[in-house]
Amino acid sequence: MANLFWPGDERAGALLDQQRFLAAMLEVEHQWLRALSACGLAPADAARSLDDVGAVTVEELATAAEASGNPVVPLVQLMRRRLGDDPAAIWLHRGLTSQDVVDTALVLCLREAMAAVLADLRAQSMTLAALAERHRGTPMAARTLTQPAVPLTFGLKAATWLDCVIEAARAVRGATRRLAVQIGGAAGTLAASAELFRRVGSSDPAAASLALVADLADRLGLPATTPWQTVRGRLTGAADALVTAGDAWGRIASDVALLGRPEFGELAEPALPGRGGSSTMPHKANPVLSVLLRRHALAAPALASTLHVAAASYVDERPDGAWHVEWDTLRLLGRRSVVAASQATELLGGLTVHEDRMAESARRDELLAERRSLDAVVDDRPGGQAYLGAADRIIDRSLSRCAQAWKDDG
Amino acid sequence: MANLFWPGDERAGALLDQQRFLAAMLEVEHQWLRALSACGLAPADAARSLDDVGAVTVEELATAAEASGNPVVPLVQLMRRRLGDDPAAIWLHRGLTSQDVVDTALVLCLREAMAAVLADLRAQSMTLAALAERHRGTPMAARTLTQPAVPLTFGLKAATWLDCVIEAARAVRGATRRLAVQIGGAAGTLAASAELFRRVGSSDPAAASLALVADLADRLGLPATTPWQTVRGRLTGAADALVTAGDAWGRIASDVALLGRPEFGELAEPALPGRGGSSTMPHKANPVLSVLLRRHALAAPALASTLHVAAASYVDERPDGAWHVEWDTLRLLGRRSVVAASQATELLGGLTVHEDRMAESARRDELLAERRSLDAVVDDRPGGQAYLGAADRIIDRSLSRCAQAWKDDG
Amino acid sequence: MANLFWPGDERAGALLDQQRFLAAMLEVEHQWLRALSACGLAPADAARSLDDVGAVTVEELATAAEASGNPVVPLVQLMRRRLGDDPAAIWLHRGLTSQDVVDTALVLCLREAMAAVLADLRAQSMTLAALAERHRGTPMAARTLTQPAVPLTFGLKAATWLDCVIEAARAVRGATRRLAVQIGGAAGTLAASAELFRRVGSSDPAAASLALVADLADRLGLPATTPWQTVRGRLTGAADALVTAGDAWGRIASDVALLGRPEFGELAEPALPGRGGSSTMPHKANPVLSVLLRRHALAAPALASTLHVAAASYVDERPDGAWHVEWDTLRLLGRRSVVAASQATELLGGLTVHEDRMAESARRDELLAERRSLDAVVDDRPGGQAYLGAADRIIDRSLSRCAQAWKDDG
Amino acid sequence: MANLFWPGDERAGALLDQQRFLAAMLEVEHQWLRALSACGLAPADAARSLDDVGAVTVEELATAAEASGNPVVPLVQLMRRRLGDDPAAIWLHRGLTSQDVVDTALVLCLREAMAAVLADLRAQSMTLAALAERHRGTPMAARTLTQPAVPLTFGLKAATWLDCVIEAARAVRGATRRLAVQIGGAAGTLAASAELFRRVGSSDPAAASLALVADLADRLGLPATTPWQTVRGRLTGAADALVTAGDAWGRIASDVALLGRPEFGELAEPALPGRGGSSTMPHKANPVLSVLLRRHALAAPALASTLHVAAASYVDERPDGAWHVEWDTLRLLGRRSVVAASQATELLGGLTVHEDRMAESARRDELLAERRSLDAVVDDRPGGQAYLGAADRIIDRSLSRCAQAWKDDG
Repeated sequence: MANLFWPGDERAGALLDQQRFLAAMLEVEHQWLRALSACGLAPADAARSLDDVGAVTVEELATAAEASGNPVVPLVQLMRRRLGDDPAAIWLHRGLTSQDVVDTALVLCLREAMAAVLADLRAQSMTLAALAERHRGTPMAARTLTQPAVPLTFGLKAATWLDCVIEAARAVRGATRRLAVQIGGAAGTLAASAELFRRVGSSDPAAASLALVADLADRLGLPATTPWQTVRGRLTGAADALVTAGDAWGRIASDVALLGRPEFGELAEPALPGRGGSSTMPHKANPVLSVLLRRHALAAPALASTLHVAAASYVDERPDGAWHVEWDTLRLLGRRSVVAASQATELLGGLTVHEDRMAESARRDELLAERRSLDAVVDDRPGGQAYLGAADRIIDRSLSRCAQAWKDDG
Repeated sequence: MANLFWPGDERAGALLDQQRFLAAMLEVEHQWLRALSACGLAPADAARSLDDVGAVTVEELATAAEASGNPVVPLVQLMRRRLGDDPAAIWLHRGLTSQDVVDTALVLCLREAMAAVLADLRAQSMTLAALAERHRGTPMAARTLTQPAVPLTFGLKAATWLDCVIEAARAVRGATRRLAVQIGGAAGTLAASAELFRRVGSSDPAAASLALVADLADRLGLPATTPWQTVRGRLTGAADALVTAGDAWGRIASDVALLGRPEFGELAEPALPGRGGSSTMPHKANPVLSVLLRRHALAAPALASTLHVAAASYVDERPDGAWHVEWDTLRLLGRRSVVAASQATELLGGLTVHEDRMAESARRDELLAERRSLDAVVDDRPGGQAYLGAADRIIDRSLSRCAQAWKDDG
Repeated sequence: MANLFWPGDERAGALLDQQRFLAAMLEVEHQWLRALSACGLAPADAARSLDDVGAVTVEELATAAEASGNPVVPLVQLMRRRLGDDPAAIWLHRGLTSQDVVDTALVLCLREAMAAVLADLRAQSMTLAALAERHRGTPMAARTLTQPAVPLTFGLKAATWLDCVIEAARAVRGATRRLAVQIGGAAGTLAASAELFRRVGSSDPAAASLALVADLADRLGLPATTPWQTVRGRLTGAADALVTAGDAWGRIASDVALLGRPEFGELAEPALPGRGGSSTMPHKANPVLSVLLRRHALAAPALASTLHVAAASYVDERPDGAWHVEWDTLRLLGRRSVVAASQATELLGGLTVHEDRMAESARRDELLAERRSLDAVVDDRPGGQAYLGAADRIIDRSLSRCAQAWKDDG
Repeated sequence: MANLFWPGDERAGALLDQQRFLAAMLEVEHQWLRALSACGLAPADAARSLDDVGAVTVEELATAAEASGNPVVPLVQLMRRRLGDDPAAIWLHRGLTSQDVVDTALVLCLREAMAAVLADLRAQSMTLAALAERHRGTPMAARTLTQPAVPLTFGLKAATWLDCVIEAARAVRGATRRLAVQIGGAAGTLAASAELFRRVGSSDPAAASLALVADLADRLGLPATTPWQTVRGRLTGAADALVTAGDAWGRIASDVALLGRPEFGELAEPALPGRGGSSTMPHKANPVLSVLLRRHALAAPALASTLHVAAASYVDERPDGAWHVEWDTLRLLGRRSVVAASQATELLGGLTVHEDRMAESARRDELLAERRSLDAVVDDRPGGQAYLGAADRIIDRSLSRCAQAWKDDG
């Protein structure tokens, strides 16, 4: 799917799109039915009947999804209708409520999107580590509050970008690990599944129903936990982590866009035929990737704030609006993050560093004003080199954090 | 188009969707070419060639839209390629820049969406005016800070809802009127079109190019104005107005959702077969429309704040990200507003008022505590009626504002 | 009051500070008591007793303000205690509720702040109009998406800034005019005041209580209207207008900060001794005003979004939180807007335009690439001047809008 | 300090107020000077001279703080002026830049505020654990989408609140641990301190300057790390954590406010004389704490979004606005979080549970509709108890997570 309102959207492919969401909801229903069979509640081969149900399309569900307030009600109705007399019809969705399916499906979709983001953050880390290493000795001007400050190396600038990316990776990885199944039944008590166990003579229906949830989690490859239907920190945490990634790319893109201006000419985006052209000005080579990354960074924080306002407005055992606003907000934030992650990888991978222009900026005399002011403190001694302080050591530490951050990821 | 992440999305139909955006961009290009012909720059029948260009699909543009940073560059390239040697190829888009086409197309799309919203606000006003009139004598409890306060009538409550809706209509109408063409050429100087006029011997190329823009505006049915490519108040104003409408619906829906709880039972959403059902609890009748309206109201303000942050970040004659973030943000806010407008009309049109439950709440003794406290101020006199103050007069004024607000709309 | 966390805060003086808020609440109570006397309900000289009540300090009210949820309850209690047996004690606040006093006091404070903002917008308009006029013939490079585009004049850039400022002024003026008294009694029915009129034999207590509100409005110099205690568009409208002003200053400051970089050197902030210095780098002259304006522009939109979320969450006749969040949010947005308004006036008033550096940028050959591309459309003719299109005419229109915008303000 | 615009503000005492911020900046300067002496750069007793400098007031710094864009420049100037010829004057602030002092002072202030929040989250956890335990057998109605759903116990509701609080504590603790010194000198290279070491003949000036920073960190009780002057995840992480705490309190307060309505009467806020009174309605007992908590929850997310937009807008080695917007935003978010934390502790500590009204709601027949619908799946068996599923086990798990969460805090 492309989105002309958000160029680059197709980079996210099917991640967190409607088809994937629908497939994830179906996956939850399938695996739940298998789990019901595995524990002896449902007939052993109930799930097999689902294979004959045929494809379900978004269009079949849309209108009824509004009427019931969520897409699960019509999905289950449709499948039951198609199953007809098949015993699977009665066991499908048994013990679940709509929120269980929507929440767990969102988690499945979000996890995939976050994995894609994390893979890109890893690639960016490697690229940035190499840039930091290669440009340890590439002098340029540091600038603060728009004005030249003191000397810098591009290696150190790249190391600060790397710090941003590692910080984002840490956040995304931590939040991904907390994404767990959300299964609680009608109101978070697992009453229906426990009741079914009781009726078939289970000695401990409560334990059995928790075990059933754990089995589902296992089948879906998600951590098991107690219901979090009104405890939304897992979702706001995922959103905050994705926004933190967007902050990293925004911060990098702001530097690239600035230093790519011809008045600086110190960096350049990867040039591809046709990229960055203008509809009227034949000479233009616009920094498209930086521009689109900054776009994302401007919009992402507001989306996370919506999720927090929603989480704070939860009431009862399922709220009247605060739940519903999460779905499309997570879709937007998730997909756009995947798009931006991919663009940032491409941007960094093909970044051109114009060392000559950097060197020129590093020769500005005022960059040594601070150093000269130290003459009033301690007389200068012969042999002073570049005024670069601990730049190299600071790079070393970034590289070491980077190695540490990714060491378990092979 | 449906959106399973945002149930009800299909209510917005094609408004502000990709196809409509693409069609609007094509419309701008077509009308501009006609205007170029009308003023004698382009061949008289240049626009006719465009009819043979054939359909353009979103997919054809998507990848290149990212490469150039916006969808106009590939759109023009594609059309020129198809036109081949036709002289129209050279005149297509001549004098425009991408931002002209994107901005004016967005305005066209937004105007349609806002017209739909306004029509719904009008319908809601009529319904609310009738409710206020009908329920002048329907007593209920006023509640403040969650606690019973003094007596109220449902007519007065409906009149305050009406005030919200009229206020929203005022904002939406005002903002719609300010939506104008945005045509400035590469950097807001109209240099290319003025140059073309100069080359063909125009005595006043600047005036001619402004007249050309005015002609385009006329063809598109939009007001003409000077370029506003870095002056974004028209767009943030539209967004603020749409958010104000969302506030009105959110405020109404919050009352309906609360008073529809069985512990109150004073209001009920329109009941339709299948609406508000649960996937597991056969007895449920959830207030789906209120829920979905509250959903929208929670998300809309953050979208407008993104547009303001963008407007405040404009730099140069076209900014590096702040422009690009507007497109999808406006799409979301516009479409969701149309959806919510339609839901609110349906909600109010079918609202059930349970006068008996209201009367019950109005009989709570503590509602007269304030009145009794006045005995310490002035001794009571016989003949005191309901403690309803100026409720009826206040309703009258709302009705009069309503009549005034819509008097010119036939 | 200064605020080290928000340098420049003292520019707002007492506007919207706690003392002013307290004074405004007292003013509402005083004038209401006078109005009660004027209509014959309260003793003729009741308000005179208030003069002996003595000063009330913020500290006396703070703890109790939390206990009652707002500052009016303890304020009235304190005054009544001090009045003792004086008949004024019983008439003070009679017919009002806390929200009436808080809302109307906020309106009084906000109106003052917005008047200060408007005065600064006017001064900025005059400055910008003069800059646009003076620099009609000052060529510089237009830049789009960070890259040089076509020729521009600084006069036209100033005219687009002027457009932003006029747009802001239009919004602020419109929103200020809508700021009206908010008096409704306990739940928006004016029941208590109507009851008092009834008890003293008024023939039309409802009309009398509306007339009483109108008299108060008159005394406060505010428009009269029916209660808007749950209809918050007046406040969100004021917030949106202030944010629109912040957008204008942010957009201008972004240009100044960029073009003030030594790599551009085309603009410079007004230089004052001590301004923009660094704690360690003796050579620095940081663009402090632009920096602080951009600071405000980044923060303001989120504050308005909070007010919209609040407005959309109103429920009952006074909501449980949505009202309370407005007060400090309006204070912040109002005070910061006054600060930024003053800074922007100072920035523009002392702006240095380096025409030589602009001219240098205007000489870049690629600025004429678009023009040369037109050779393929129409052969060039001798006598072509600067490629500046309708720049002068567009400036004229901005100047004319400016004159129009301020013509009634003497 | 009280704030009539934000009742309850005085609960935060001096935390994150101006005096504390100023004191923290002084503390950074003092400890840095001590560290400079300790490593042999500055005279051994240089810091002792600072004791004679006398108090510095906010007012002395305010105007100059604007002129230099931050409060450190005038603070250092003032102190140097007062020190006169004292050698300490030359060593004060030597090697630092303003951002080092502001950032590290903010971290010190923020850490204290977060510790206060964490202590309250701990107290709330204990209270909620006790409530969950005590009310395992207190039946009430679960409600979803405003409608009665299935049976619940108040113990389980308290356990979900507990889950929210534990989640918040986890976030706040994690973010607090990451708050480290931020010392990098003019542009993050530690050039000035390294240069000083070089001039006095240090064999490894870079290592020495990093050791100097580590010594400062030690003195301040903060973790040492490399400069993060453009890597702002530590601050956005702190903000996200505080917002997550606000979400928890908002979610709890929404339940208390709803269930405290007389139509429910299932919960009541702690009653104190004078709390929740009205200025006109003598009978009122408004749920003030819940109201004020909901207020905070509505406003906090937007503040965090501002910090993210800022972090994403960082450019160069110190940005032109994005840094400055952080200070007051963090102050607001931090102080308000402390206030809300304290209010939430008080609310939960004095919460009244009306078991009779809960029992009444639990007797609604429709709560068993889901259970009865299971008859179609498995015939009922005699002996069915309350339809409460795994409620007790789920409570157990919350209690166990709670014990785990706080086990190291003695």
